[in-house]
Amino acid sequence: MIKITLPDGSVKEFEVNSTAIDVAKSISEGLARNVISASFNGTTVETTTPLTTDGSLVLYTFNDDAGKKAFWHSSAHVLAQAILTFYPNAKLTIGPAIDNGFYYDLDLGEDTLSEKDFPAIEKKFLELAREKAEFKMRSISKADALAYYQERNNAYKVELIEGLEDGDITFCDHSDFTDLCRGGHIPHTGLIKAVKIMNVAGAYWRGDEKNNQLTRVYGISFPKQKELKQYLELLEEAKKRDHRKLGKELELFTFSQRVGQGLPLWLPKGAALRNRLEDFLKKAQKQAGYEMVMTPHIGQKELYETSGHYAKYGEDSFQPITTPKADEEFLLKPMNCPHHCEVFAYKPYSYKDLPKRFAEFGTVYRYEQSGELHGLTRVRGFTQDDAHIFCTPEQLDSEFKNVIDLVLYVFGSLGFENFKAQVSIRDMENLDKYIGDSDTWEIAENAIINAAKDKGLDFVIEEGEAAFYGPKLDFMVKDALGRSWQLGTIQVDYNLPKRFELTYKGADNQLHRPVMIHRAPFGSMERFIAVLLEHTGGKFPLWLTPEQVIILPISEKYQNYAEKVLHLLENSEIRALIDDRNEKTGRKIRDAEVSKIPFMIIVGEKEEEEGTVSVRKHGEGDLGSFSTEAFISLINDEVSKTLVPFGK
Amino acid sequence: MIKITLPDGSVKEFEVNSTAIDVAKSISEGLARNVISASFNGTTVETTTPLTTDGSLVLYTFNDDAGKKAFWHSSAHVLAQAILTFYPNAKLTIGPAIDNGFYYDLDLGEDTLSEKDFPAIEKKFLELAREKAEFKMRSISKADALAYYQERNNAYKVELIEGLEDGDITFCDHSDFTDLCRGGHIPHTGLIKAVKIMNVAGAYWRGDEKNNQLTRVYGISFPKQKELKQYLELLEEAKKRDHRKLGKELELFTFSQRVGQGLPLWLPKGAALRNRLEDFLKKAQKQAGYEMVMTPHIGQKELYETSGHYAKYGEDSFQPITTPKADEEFLLKPMNCPHHCEVFAYKPYSYKDLPKRFAEFGTVYRYEQSGELHGLTRVRGFTQDDAHIFCTPEQLDSEFKNVIDLVLYVFGSLGFENFKAQVSIRDMENLDKYIGDSDTWEIAENAIINAAKDKGLDFVIEEGEAAFYGPKLDFMVKDALGRSWQLGTIQVDYNLPKRFELTYKGADNQLHRPVMIHRAPFGSMERFIAVLLEHTGGKFPLWLTPEQVIILPISEKYQNYAEKVLHLLENSEIRALIDDRNEKTGRKIRDAEVSKIPFMIIVGEKEEEEGTVSVRKHGEGDLGSFSTEAFISLINDEVSKTLVPFGK
Repeated sequence: MIKITLPDGSVKEFEVNSTAIDVAKSISEGLARNVISASFNGTTVETTTPLTTDGSLVLYTFNDDAGKKAFWHSSAHVLAQAILTFYPNAKLTIGPAIDNGFYYDLDLGEDTLSEKDFPAIEKKFLELAREKAEFKMRSISKADALAYYQERNNAYKVELIEGLEDGDITFCDHSDFTDLCRGGHIPHTGLIKAVKIMNVAGAYWRGDEKNNQLTRVYGISFPKQKELKQYLELLEEAKKRDHRKLGKELELFTFSQRVGQGLPLWLPKGAALRNRLEDFLKKAQKQAGYEMVMTPHIGQKELYETSGHYAKYGEDSFQPITTPKADEEFLLKPMNCPHHCEVFAYKPYSYKDLPKRFAEFGTVYRYEQSGELHGLTRVRGFTQDDAHIFCTPEQLDSEFKNVIDLVLYVFGSLGFENFKAQVSIRDMENLDKYIGDSDTWEIAENAIINAAKDKGLDFVIEEGEAAFYGPKLDFMVKDALGRSWQLGTIQVDYNLPKRFELTYKGADNQLHRPVMIHRAPFGSMERFIAVLLEHTGGKFPLWLTPEQVIILPISEKYQNYAEKVLHLLENSEIRALIDDRNEKTGRKIRDAEVSKIPFMIIVGEKEEEEGTVSVRKHGEGDLGSFSTEAFISLINDEVSKTLVPFGK
Repeated sequence: MIKITLPDGSVKEFEVNSTAIDVAKSISEGLARNVISASFNGTTVETTTPLTTDGSLVLYTFNDDAGKKAFWHSSAHVLAQAILTFYPNAKLTIGPAIDNGFYYDLDLGEDTLSEKDFPAIEKKFLELAREKAEFKMRSISKADALAYYQERNNAYKVELIEGLEDGDITFCDHSDFTDLCRGGHIPHTGLIKAVKIMNVAGAYWRGDEKNNQLTRVYGISFPKQKELKQYLELLEEAKKRDHRKLGKELELFTFSQRVGQGLPLWLPKGAALRNRLEDFLKKAQKQAGYEMVMTPHIGQKELYETSGHYAKYGEDSFQPITTPKADEEFLLKPMNCPHHCEVFAYKPYSYKDLPKRFAEFGTVYRYEQSGELHGLTRVRGFTQDDAHIFCTPEQLDSEFKNVIDLVLYVFGSLGFENFKAQVSIRDMENLDKYIGDSDTWEIAENAIINAAKDKGLDFVIEEGEAAFYGPKLDFMVKDALGRSWQLGTIQVDYNLPKRFELTYKGADNQLHRPVMIHRAPFGSMERFIAVLLEHTGGKFPLWLTPEQVIILPISEKYQNYAEKVLHLLENSEIRALIDDRNEKTGRKIRDAEVSKIPFMIIVGEKEEEEGTVSVRKHGEGDLGSFSTEAFISLINDEVSKTLVPFGK
């Protein structure tokens, strides 16, 4: 008998040579049907591998990342098998799982494979899958493995095998297909019920452009046809909502080759949108007792040596800026905290002066490799809605709660209703690696946990995930397509106040070290706007949207009246524009619907005579006739529904 | 007879050996009394030098810079003479005029000279001046000159003489004092009616710290006692208004050694002040049809090569930023225009889309040597209230007028009533050195001149002062102490649109080059706030000042009522604070007067019962009792007196 420990800590006895599937069966038949992969003592095993010693077993379904990985890697085998039926001389190379699906790289010789071949390959794939062929791993000697591929004239596999140790080499067989493989498969091909070949591309063998070019076939597969359908719909929707596409359509931002990649230029509508978001947060922050400061975008290298950032990031980031005489060195600021420490340090404080809450929309610059850049979500320059709170340890509790309130206010005002929080605390078995004494840490950790509970957050506690300088609370937001984004963060910091030797005079007349809280509800303006674009598909909340109202005069005759209405709206701080094109009203209405402007008002003879406007709401249709005053009230009411002042 | 041409172009005949004084006398006795220096054919001459050839003569009085220079240089001789009477063994070195006065460097050997010696030296100086001794230049051979100073054991003068050509050496005698001297004196010492020794400092011979240390005595002198008095008062007032001092007292900004010199950190009150100024301009700019954009603080070197800035400034500025792989080069942006050109270039335009007016509070970085840095007026990082207008040549006229309106609106709202403008046009004799064709230039120059006339500006036209890329209009503002500051600037640019190949489609369906206008009414936020501080002495206009109202509860009992009033004021966007110190009301009133807060309200039993406030206005005293509503109206009325919306 062997003892198997499960993730919940329970220990069960099984016969020697039991498999992961056997263990799953002992729990429930349902689980056994869904288990597709397993790890034993931290190593991936087949679900059919006989277990011969005591150990910890984790079972995975398709809902787990590890489960998906096994599913998609197994699918790569079937894909290669399917391709071989059409291209019997194709030479196999590698076929791994990736974040969304899998690929297989093949050398097709003179043959080519293109989109028109996908349906036949997919059909063959599903035929083969229906065979319910088991994936069976077997060990093979290096000599036999080499001979196998030499016989098939496959120099790629030979090269791979030559890099492996004799005794460590395994093949995987299923049906009539054999591949050199490290393992990690689902029980049998029958579990794959849906497949889609996504794309075909060129790829160099081992990623080196001096090598042969191979054909890379990308695919994705699912246990249910419905899941594939949903995935493709999501993909279609995500494509429509891609913030890079919407940013262009809505004329929010652009990039310039001359300015440099990853350095967004905010166009008028985007800059105005950002300004509204910034003003919104400024107002709430003022209510919450923050003070704005402004600091430069560079600092002497010494500043970052003091903060410790240089030692940590210096060599991998934008390099120092020297002066003509080469007697000074500056760095582009990668974060605002060192500057804010220097702001704090400009005068002495008593405990009565604390907390000090310094806020800044601080633009920072961090080097990213060009391949890593992506629209506004991965850039080289971005503006943090940064603030640093300097407080006494006793104030940590209430300050943390206030910051959570602010973050929830931001999410609520912008329509993010679905989010989770993560509290990161110390690794209790390695307390040495944290700065600051244990008592202070405990106070801070408890302050965060209490604040999270008190504010009713849906949160998990992750031991060992704290930074070396303090515990933190991160917010993960789910967007309308169900994708998760890390947005706001709140971090306690004991390190910088020490490195900058910050102090305040306590009630005991002695000097004490303040605690610092870093926080950014948006995270960065760039990333936040990207997420907001993808979340809303460009249909921003009424208070934020670039144009709130479009005025459609039914002919040129009513242009003057349209302008009068525009003027009244603008005086009430309502953002409006006139569609004065020489088009039919029906066409103007259709175009306005496409443009997503929330309100449309139509003005003609009747409206001019009566001093009214005919109102249509985007997605809802005709609301009837309104006096301009009543229409302005309508807009203001709608705005105040989503945008309540902070703390009200 | 010789022919003397005067600056007005008139030519008069004089006897050979006539002097500048003789020429002055021929014009008027009054002028002759005031002439203290002259230049003949572009070279400084003594007013008593006999003129022997035809030539151009310029006569200077103390009102001219050249006159002041002669006056102060002559004063340095008298200062040295006075010092020698107390320190007969002192060795003379050099004694030049400087911007404000003069100094003399002496080697006093073992002796010292300090502030307590100033009165005796000043007294002796005036005694000597009253001798009305003439300054007489004489040529001397190198050998004789060397012998003269060798005899006096003066190695400094010997060193100077050794560096001179025989035949070029002159001495100046007055009274019993002789000095090696190049000339440029006033007629006689009697013209110096007032003197003040300002300071004594150490200075190395020839500025080299390896040489002997000398004693440098600074002084200033005037033709009238009254002028000295005024100067000293101005100096005193300027010291009080020094923006570095006020910035510290009002807690507006600070500098940090770690962040780096010339890189201001804006403290909460300063950042709020800047924000108010920015919001003020944003609002006016919105009215004037500008659109805000936002661009990064770096750009690829290529961007500045395209714009031409790299070739011009690159080597003397902050050096390029490289990346870890060293395959890219960026520069801190020294100006925003290249970025705005790239913003313009993001899409095609028709002539109907123009003008485009892109505005940004853009922070730029320019290297200045550390010795050049001064508070906020000379910094290494500053924020321009920048905008670039892209328009058709036909729109230049009206755009220029609109910009002037905006500049005048800014000056008016901030209490700058005294300013002049300068129109800089081409050097008509060197038309080759300007980019763009002559017709376009003429249109632009006329547009500027017409706009300046049309707007009733007090302006001068300076030929040859235009930049190579276009003509411009600069504003010189006089502050409350009569000092001039260059603030706003408006420049036409034909160069950047060409370098960036910017185009729009004209009514003729052909592509045309837009004209670009650079403009910044404030110039830079840092410099403007410095000037505003020195102009107002920290008493900002009511709409701008950090705190508008201070509430003084007459005892702790009325703290609650004071907070209620504070809340009402804050709800009406009035900036107020409570002086809740445990101090007598009289003391609180005195302190509030010192703090320059414009309104003071006192609350006690009577006020609480009646729901009123007792109001005192800074510098005006008691205004009586007001309901809080009436007080809020009072403030709003006062604000709207200085701050009218733009265009109203």
